Amino acid sequence: MKAKILTIGDEILIGQIVDSNSAWIGQQLNMNGIRIEEIISIGDTRAAILRGLEAAKDADIVLMTGGLGPTKDDITKKVLAEYFGVELVFHEHSYQRIVKYFEMRNFQLSPSHKQQCYLPANAEVLQNDRGTAPGMWFEHEGTIYVSMPGVPMEMKHLVTDRVLPRLQDDERLTPIVHRTIRTIGTGESVIADQIADFENNLPDHVKLAYLPGRGQVRLRLTATGADKADLMAFLDKKVIELQGLIPEYIYGYEKETISEAVGKILKQRGQMFGTAESCTGGFIAHRTTEIPGSSAYFGGSVVAYSNDIKMRILGVEEATLKAHGAVSEQTVSEMVKGALEVLNVDYALAVSGIAGPGGGSPEKPVGTIWTAVGNKKEIRTKKLMLTNNRMRNIQITSNYTLNLLRKFLLEQ
Amino acid sequence: MKAKILTIGDEILIGQIVDSNSAWIGQQLNMNGIRIEEIISIGDTRAAILRGLEAAKDADIVLMTGGLGPTKDDITKKVLAEYFGVELVFHEHSYQRIVKYFEMRNFQLSPSHKQQCYLPANAEVLQNDRGTAPGMWFEHEGTIYVSMPGVPMEMKHLVTDRVLPRLQDDERLTPIVHRTIRTIGTGESVIADQIADFENNLPDHVKLAYLPGRGQVRLRLTATGADKADLMAFLDKKVIELQGLIPEYIYGYEKETISEAVGKILKQRGQMFGTAESCTGGFIAHRTTEIPGSSAYFGGSVVAYSNDIKMRILGVEEATLKAHGAVSEQTVSEMVKGALEVLNVDYALAVSGIAGPGGGSPEKPVGTIWTAVGNKKEIRTKKLMLTNNRMRNIQITSNYTLNLLRKFLLEQ
Repeated sequence: MKAKILTIGDEILIGQIVDSNSAWIGQQLNMNGIRIEEIISIGDTRAAILRGLEAAKDADIVLMTGGLGPTKDDITKKVLAEYFGVELVFHEHSYQRIVKYFEMRNFQLSPSHKQQCYLPANAEVLQNDRGTAPGMWFEHEGTIYVSMPGVPMEMKHLVTDRVLPRLQDDERLTPIVHRTIRTIGTGESVIADQIADFENNLPDHVKLAYLPGRGQVRLRLTATGADKADLMAFLDKKVIELQGLIPEYIYGYEKETISEAVGKILKQRGQMFGTAESCTGGFIAHRTTEIPGSSAYFGGSVVAYSNDIKMRILGVEEATLKAHGAVSEQTVSEMVKGALEVLNVDYALAVSGIAGPGGGSPEKPVGTIWTAVGNKKEIRTKKLMLTNNRMRNIQITSNYTLNLLRKFLLEQ
Repeated sequence: MKAKILTIGDEILIGQIVDSNSAWIGQQLNMNGIRIEEIISIGDTRAAILRGLEAAKDADIVLMTGGLGPTKDDITKKVLAEYFGVELVFHEHSYQRIVKYFEMRNFQLSPSHKQQCYLPANAEVLQNDRGTAPGMWFEHEGTIYVSMPGVPMEMKHLVTDRVLPRLQDDERLTPIVHRTIRTIGTGESVIADQIADFENNLPDHVKLAYLPGRGQVRLRLTATGADKADLMAFLDKKVIELQGLIPEYIYGYEKETISEAVGKILKQRGQMFGTAESCTGGFIAHRTTEIPGSSAYFGGSVVAYSNDIKMRILGVEEATLKAHGAVSEQTVSEMVKGALEVLNVDYALAVSGIAGPGGGSPEKPVGTIWTAVGNKKEIRTKKLMLTNNRMRNIQITSNYTLNLLRKFLLEQ
């Protein structure tokens, strides 16, 4: 079963809002074995909507959002009626629902709400329990068209409670299964080389996609076929094969982040960690604490942006800073030691570097970042040579050091 | 000038990533007077890409992202060559750039990187300083095609530094001027009421948009007309009018963030600040230190996630925590005092709250957040009652407290 998504509204085209509706619909359809072939975003003019309908008509189902509100620029219904060659007719039942909805809330009804209840004659109404604009279901020349409001809450309700249940028994649905394998510590091309045979031997009904970003690469396996259970079993086997091929790079699966992976290990062990951050400026602490429940394994952080604080709170020796500089192996080692003590945690990681764009020197160019991780027994250090881009350096370093901690933990 | 955006990649169709690239490109084009007519997202198959190119060809410019990586599923270039009726040829200069890039970083070059440098013969290379896949510019039957990697950082760099400058002199562009006025501390409707007359009196060629988000409201004035200099002069006058109408809410203009506004004041005065953060977990420090040069006015932070650290480093009294709890006016006041001392800064701000989604109680529900700002002479506190959404609470609190500090500074 092939689907197309048609989103209507200028606010998406000019980037005033990000089209997260389509992503959500895409997830839902995909999980239900409906292949999304295209997402088309168009403005709210008659010509654009007609063009969009024309471009979408070879799909089995077209999911449309937007242009159903009570205002002048919401013209989807009118254009749909024109496209289907039918009249707009007043839908009394929908109107009575709006009247009741407004009475209950003591809101004032406006003439434009009556307007909302004129629907194309061939529409089957999909009752909208979250707002005033009814959803609509059409069948026209072998294609299903669903028209929904663009308000995310209303759209989600209609897809979940009205559209998907109705599609459930459609025999055109193809079973589809996905698995995401999350890697860190190397690039797309190194992985591609290491799993070249694996990739070349994948059968035609299984696709592998590389999704890189911020020092990580996600691998996504997608299988389509006749039987969902078979596909799941097959992908399970493939995931195990990948674990054998690139064990050193895999840190998690599906939606797990590197900071969740670290948290999971520490939580199991009842241990805590903390950070001592110079150039990452609290970003590692933030990445950790944005996860609900992180207080179970995160003690806190000293963001030692100035040398004064490195000495004052973390106890880095003045002599160390003088001899080796703030961006040095010796300094990050002492920062770990100081953090273990002052934060009273089992593990600490430390970062000091030149995030850029200024502050570089010939010996220590922008992008030079020293990292360290350790506990009371052992401290490991690693120097990174990154880019000129400040935010990118901060993000990559945060991923990198959390992974360093993860590996250190796994060896304890 | 009419544009279409073509995003290539299954990950968008199945909703694994939200297509924020298109929104960003839409904003940039719109700001430059280029009308976006359609955004089309398609999968990475030959058939889909050919179809997308066919659907986009009536635009003046087609901006494409995705499918340029070194792996097998990245087939954009091959399909473009087919569509334009040209061969793929090896681009030595791009390859040498990759070789140098990798040598500098001591990364290993793989055969697939060579593959990345085979480009359609009619491509003009747009040098990509942020990654290995070169951008490409084509002109074909009266339409400009730009092909870029889907990695946001690389795409943004190519649009900003390569594509827009090249379009700047195109005579099809309509002169357009924007001004953004940044406000904080109140909502959209309060501002709308206060500037109702101003808004009603704007001429037809000037539009005002409200862009709310994360406790801030940006006001964007957009003027289109025949002469750019005239438009700029007119908007300058309008901005001054707005300053007179809502002075208490305006903190900056254009891209200035609240943390830059704070930094500017402190830098001028040669003073420093620091933070003591519990529930924001380092996010305020991060927001501060993501700005280049922030070491001139930011000393550091103590992320005191545990009560132990609140006492141990910040010197919060155990009795205070016992009597009033960690989320209290008394605790954040003591956190400010402790931070001033231990971070040795002129000003400090402190936060302690229940970010959610768990951890609330009847007296202190999720979203209860105490904030404080002060110097050695005076400490001011303020309680916020926010939402159930953890990340939203962290973001709003960070904006709120930085604005509290800004106002405090202006009164010194």
